[in-house]
Amino acid sequence: MPTPEISVIGISGIPEIRPGADLAGLIAMSAKKQKLQISSEDILVVTQKIVSKAEGQEVKLADVKPSKFATDYAKQWNKDPRQVEVVLRESKRIVKMDIGVMITETHHGFICANSGVDMSNASKDGVAMLLPKDPDASARNIRDGITRATRSSPAVIISDTFGRPWRDGQTNIAIGIAGMDAMVDYRGQKDTRGAELKVTLIAAVDELASAAELVMGKTIGVPVALIRGYKYKSGPGTYKTLLYRPEVDLFR
Amino acid sequence: MPTPEISVIGISGIPEIRPGADLAGLIAMSAKKQKLQISSEDILVVTQKIVSKAEGQEVKLADVKPSKFATDYAKQWNKDPRQVEVVLRESKRIVKMDIGVMITETHHGFICANSGVDMSNASKDGVAMLLPKDPDASARNIRDGITRATRSSPAVIISDTFGRPWRDGQTNIAIGIAGMDAMVDYRGQKDTRGAELKVTLIAAVDELASAAELVMGKTIGVPVALIRGYKYKSGPGTYKTLLYRPEVDLFR
Repeated sequence: MPTPEISVIGISGIPEIRPGADLAGLIAMSAKKQKLQISSEDILVVTQKIVSKAEGQEVKLADVKPSKFATDYAKQWNKDPRQVEVVLRESKRIVKMDIGVMITETHHGFICANSGVDMSNASKDGVAMLLPKDPDASARNIRDGITRATRSSPAVIISDTFGRPWRDGQTNIAIGIAGMDAMVDYRGQKDTRGAELKVTLIAAVDELASAAELVMGKTIGVPVALIRGYKYKSGPGTYKTLLYRPEVDLFR
Repeated sequence: MPTPEISVIGISGIPEIRPGADLAGLIAMSAKKQKLQISSEDILVVTQKIVSKAEGQEVKLADVKPSKFATDYAKQWNKDPRQVEVVLRESKRIVKMDIGVMITETHHGFICANSGVDMSNASKDGVAMLLPKDPDASARNIRDGITRATRSSPAVIISDTFGRPWRDGQTNIAIGIAGMDAMVDYRGQKDTRGAELKVTLIAAVDELASAAELVMGKTIGVPVALIRGYKYKSGPGTYKTLLYRPEVDLFR
């Protein structure tokens, strides 16, 4: 058996992204400068931050008029009521709201802190960055753009960094997918000795997003990674496959 | 800036593991056969299954006498009462027990389904595989053995595949660590434009375990992966860093 080997290669040199930027074009250009030829067997992982920026998914806090609920909660926990208001607007359900932490279900169905809203630029620029409206569409757009620029159609994953219950620290996960199945399904398969498998449904796109984070880091200006050598299963793909079904969700 | 690049290389050819096996010696030998020279800058990810086997962490179901509680619950959900009994013995707390699913806190402090007990061999061999008693010690033992065999001291991660609340599918995470810090801490750092970072504490060992899973798969006989090119922070390391602190746990 040949040894399986995967490479995770950071793509750097992507300029500061502004609303309306041609993200795919910029990624293709940066890859080319690195002498990296993108192939249809590759997977591109693109961090949510630059996707949201290119899509203009930001809210000026000066324009936000907080509700009474947001104002009361903000006062209680010493928060900016406009930031609380943005989190509430981006959510369809509050899962938990305690000790100053808001765990919400976003309109997409992601369950995460603060509806995935990024406040890290709030104090500097006065803006809150929102998740893409339809992250699968964002991934498809990037994929189409890459195809136009390179004639190759890699799978594309939009990644974000989420915390998780009962385990400290955050990890990168997939919030948008194009060109590949989200999961690897082992149901009904046996191991080398003929025993049933303990694990049946692997969230491969989340593992790929995590692998990409290892080269992205947070401060080094690498918002995109190319993963090579992983045999993904082609398909349209959607983040919806990863959303938990309410009927088997023990923690609703 | 040089382009960051990471390789994830599967180590195959490791024979069926029996209790008492010299796991580090077998890994070193298999790597050598692959002409893979292990260095102290590398990270070895070893799947829990072969660690538990080498440590004899199995229970013969024929020897298990289930309690009344286990028997009643098993009957209600059409389960093997001896399997339920093993799960209960491996837990210090039941987090949730509903619709036939047991989410427990193990004696180590991991919160997962079935106390991490692997029943996949139960019907075939009549045994339940338990998690290692002290997975950090398991990682240290493997690291020491690799050092003896190769004179290099890579970081070692013991990985297992866990589900997670509110997100379908399972991913590989770290349950034991030796030679590296579990987390990358960005607290107090700024991004390239001088803004605060949204994300502050990355569970790097979990992301490394996830990256390793991409070459391990589940059926292809690759229980170990070597990760090269990731600059980890040396330290003793422990899975305890990843356990959620009860005082900030919203979901207890």
